[in-house]
Amino acid sequence: MKSAALDTMAVLGVSLAAIGLCRSERSIFFDEMVVIINMNEQNPIRKVFFVSDGTGITAESFGQSLLAQFADTRFEPMTLPYIDTAEKAQEVVQLLNQVASEGVPPLVFSTIIDEGIAEVLRTAESFRVDIFDTFMPALEKQLNAHAVHQVGRKRSIDSSGGGKYNQRIEAVHFAIDNDDGARLKSYDQADIILVGVSRCGKTPTCLYLGLQFGIRAANYPITEDDMDMMRLPKALEPYKNKLFGLTITPERLAAIRHERRPNSRYASPRQCAMELQEVEQMYDRNNIPFLNTTHYSVEEIATRVIAQTGIERRVK
Amino acid sequence: MKSAALDTMAVLGVSLAAIGLCRSERSIFFDEMVVIINMNEQNPIRKVFFVSDGTGITAESFGQSLLAQFADTRFEPMTLPYIDTAEKAQEVVQLLNQVASEGVPPLVFSTIIDEGIAEVLRTAESFRVDIFDTFMPALEKQLNAHAVHQVGRKRSIDSSGGGKYNQRIEAVHFAIDNDDGARLKSYDQADIILVGVSRCGKTPTCLYLGLQFGIRAANYPITEDDMDMMRLPKALEPYKNKLFGLTITPERLAAIRHERRPNSRYASPRQCAMELQEVEQMYDRNNIPFLNTTHYSVEEIATRVIAQTGIERRVK
Repeated sequence: MKSAALDTMAVLGVSLAAIGLCRSERSIFFDEMVVIINMNEQNPIRKVFFVSDGTGITAESFGQSLLAQFADTRFEPMTLPYIDTAEKAQEVVQLLNQVASEGVPPLVFSTIIDEGIAEVLRTAESFRVDIFDTFMPALEKQLNAHAVHQVGRKRSIDSSGGGKYNQRIEAVHFAIDNDDGARLKSYDQADIILVGVSRCGKTPTCLYLGLQFGIRAANYPITEDDMDMMRLPKALEPYKNKLFGLTITPERLAAIRHERRPNSRYASPRQCAMELQEVEQMYDRNNIPFLNTTHYSVEEIATRVIAQTGIERRVK
Repeated sequence: MKSAALDTMAVLGVSLAAIGLCRSERSIFFDEMVVIINMNEQNPIRKVFFVSDGTGITAESFGQSLLAQFADTRFEPMTLPYIDTAEKAQEVVQLLNQVASEGVPPLVFSTIIDEGIAEVLRTAESFRVDIFDTFMPALEKQLNAHAVHQVGRKRSIDSSGGGKYNQRIEAVHFAIDNDDGARLKSYDQADIILVGVSRCGKTPTCLYLGLQFGIRAANYPITEDDMDMMRLPKALEPYKNKLFGLTITPERLAAIRHERRPNSRYASPRQCAMELQEVEQMYDRNNIPFLNTTHYSVEEIATRVIAQTGIERRVK
């Protein structure tokens, strides 16, 4: 087993690696950063740290939501997860103070449950916001209860938590087994079947629906052969009420396909435009609800599919 | 296209469906709920709403993190995403007021960017916390900049956003193509190769690493045949430095396998214990770092694998 000191080094080592640095390059990096900042006084880069005694996922999520509202500021983010000892917190404080000493106090978005660790972080020179610090006192009063201040509770495996985990695992395996029209005989167990042309977003959406919400999502690719037939593929006919279509702009589809097979007919704007026109006609003819995914992330596509169809989340 | 009124109904319809109710059952539900609350005065169920003009993912994330700290309170959560018009917000207010009128004010965790919509929600009788309301003024001052107050910015496809989306799509397809030892010839492109016995968490972890972080993760199942050989499978030998092992307790593995093939030899505690003992010996003999996944969610397994190995996130 590793010592606490090694753990701490690992934490900071990882975080520096995450921005493409090894430990020895650290001071060079900060020198260069100051230069960049001086060159962009109107539009400086702000160092941002997401610090958590857990995974850091919540800290990233709320921090990024806030920062996304500042269109003209450039940010350099770094996530420091599992800061769960006072020693690790002390190393974080040193890192934050070093950034601050070079002119610009770092922004810190944190989710620290342990009061002792929070106290250490408070000594750093930074602009820090923490959802536990901020909201817990009022919430305790509202619920007339004391928070347990115990790390990692959200993900703990209690009876319902274990059930949720199984639902998610099963749904992920379902999505893989039923990816790309692979296995038609499980469609009666599907909560939803996504259809669309190749690379319009079906596969990541199915997996996200499974991972996040335990929804069993299959997907079926509409190919040129199907389009030549001018009708819904036969395999899909019994499941018409489970179908949901995805579409996308020809330009975006061509760009995505180009990454996969550069300069192919498959990736040509003309081919993409033709396939998309035909598949959208197929949706219309068969009253299949559909969504244009062009401007959406996987998360948005998945949550919009749920909102538009009303399918039920198995994990809430 | 649907009218705003229909949209609003759809929003509330979905949310009621999410707790297993149709619209006509609504009043019965609330009557029953009051009874339950009266029966559990020491330990009431609190209705919780995650309200957002976007996906609702951030609202759920920070709200659940806070609520998880209250071990003895039971919560009934409902997510209301895409509340992006004053009309939809007004419907939410009615729903919240109805809950409040039955005795217990609902808890609301929100991420509302549009000030007009936030104003409507403020009229509801609820205990509400919103990260934009709370943190934005201080953040604007700190950054000496004005927030753009524009919905969905985080997920917008700018040049870097589009690149991130492609990275994630490619990584998800990589995980599927390289699931379960399917295709050994791509291992030189893998960032990491997870190994372990069947159903110990390899597949969901690989997909999460791809979806969330753009990391290309393959996985290879260690079978009884491999164990009989008492050595690392030949296909893995050239990639020893990319290997990371997962393990789990025999009890938990048996429970997961039982869901898949009830009462099989595959799911028997004895078989699970034997496989796990042998695979852990294999990790030790070959100096493969490994993690016990028993008490962790998919998110925790993935972020701990990153922290333990130092592999770099392609999407930050």
